[in-house]
Amino acid sequence: MKLARIRDPKTGETFRGEVVNGDFIETTDQTFSLSRVDILAPVKPAKIICVGLNYRDHIEETGSEPPDHPSLFFKPPTAITNPNEPIIINPENRYDPEGEVAVIIEKKCRNINREEAFNYIWGFTGLNDVTNRDAQEWEQNWVRAKGFDTAAPIGPFIATPDEIDLPISFQLEVNGEVRQTSDTSNMIFDIPDLLEEISSFMTLEKGDVISTGTPMGISPIDKGDNVRLKIEGVGILENPVRY
Amino acid sequence: MKLARIRDPKTGETFRGEVVNGDFIETTDQTFSLSRVDILAPVKPAKIICVGLNYRDHIEETGSEPPDHPSLFFKPPTAITNPNEPIIINPENRYDPEGEVAVIIEKKCRNINREEAFNYIWGFTGLNDVTNRDAQEWEQNWVRAKGFDTAAPIGPFIATPDEIDLPISFQLEVNGEVRQTSDTSNMIFDIPDLLEEISSFMTLEKGDVISTGTPMGISPIDKGDNVRLKIEGVGILENPVRY
Repeated sequence: MKLARIRDPKTGETFRGEVVNGDFIETTDQTFSLSRVDILAPVKPAKIICVGLNYRDHIEETGSEPPDHPSLFFKPPTAITNPNEPIIINPENRYDPEGEVAVIIEKKCRNINREEAFNYIWGFTGLNDVTNRDAQEWEQNWVRAKGFDTAAPIGPFIATPDEIDLPISFQLEVNGEVRQTSDTSNMIFDIPDLLEEISSFMTLEKGDVISTGTPMGISPIDKGDNVRLKIEGVGILENPVRY
Repeated sequence: MKLARIRDPKTGETFRGEVVNGDFIETTDQTFSLSRVDILAPVKPAKIICVGLNYRDHIEETGSEPPDHPSLFFKPPTAITNPNEPIIINPENRYDPEGEVAVIIEKKCRNINREEAFNYIWGFTGLNDVTNRDAQEWEQNWVRAKGFDTAAPIGPFIATPDEIDLPISFQLEVNGEVRQTSDTSNMIFDIPDLLEEISSFMTLEKGDVISTGTPMGISPIDKGDNVRLKIEGVGILENPVRY
């Protein structure tokens, strides 16, 4: 199943529904044409937990060492940006997109084992971990670097585990040029590892998002750019860049 | 005004109300005796933004340098602990309480100036920034160190700005022994500075919590300890410590 959150631009009402035949959204009692609605971030998470340095080729390009444990950080809910809405940057700083596969938690859990991890996964979506690289240079915790408004485009849909083949391939393009291409088999800490580790000290709740890290291919974006994150089996998360 | 969130232990229902004469909670249509209800964390924030290294005597005891900009980090909503509920630690790590005055945001805001900061403050409460000091030694971002379940006792009440005199004195006791004592005039970045800085890149929403930093006096807690954070004009946030 592919699930969407949409807004009817005529009424402003929001709905959850299923994506049918790629072109329609069926809610419990209505059918919307995808081209006539605003697609919203498919979840409203209380927590967004991101994983840094989880692809070996990206670790090499940053000059870092592979971590012994997953490197974790938070993005706040106010950073969430809907598909097709702008990433807002300022001209003083360098901003980089980071394409990632995100896991959405299905139900509350704590202390789960890697073997049971998939019992707690609602589905997969895309997350662009937009980063203020200048702030990241000096901040101890990456609140400005990773937490500014519009730093977390999410979407476009949730693909449930039965809908999607693992590993998941993904690709980030800027203005049609491919910058990142990888698949989830290249992660150092895989999805079950991440759920076991994070839930060992922190309760995960329905709708929480775990963004699983970005591969090699980091370079900046500027005003007027168009960023597309294609997640195989999920769809395309597209956002323009503005000041 | 002093505001509370309470739970009636007989029915499990939760209410918001005003603390009257120190002993009663008045909701819109009921009066509860404080001694007969469970006092809950007075807010359910979407974001908890904490400030590190904001008291000079604490910076000295940690061997750090005063930061040029506020040092910020997040705690997740799942870390919130109600008054009188336990802080749960494990025997393998060192855990320290950090007593802090927390500001609660009244309404959505972005890019506010320090002069108008108090227009956006709903009130003040206590926050104990419980820290896993061992995890903090090696983590880049303090997710395990500051974000584990029970790492954020909050309360007991919200004192609105008209109720409270600035600067606010506060004191942290463990088993009746005073460990920290200071007041908010000793902050390096004061409350208006913090609101201006944080809202310059991130939207603040109603109920968001900004915890303003801890003074000198850090030392560990262990199973069986009792931690009391007294905030002048707010009340006492008390939590036992358990494995």
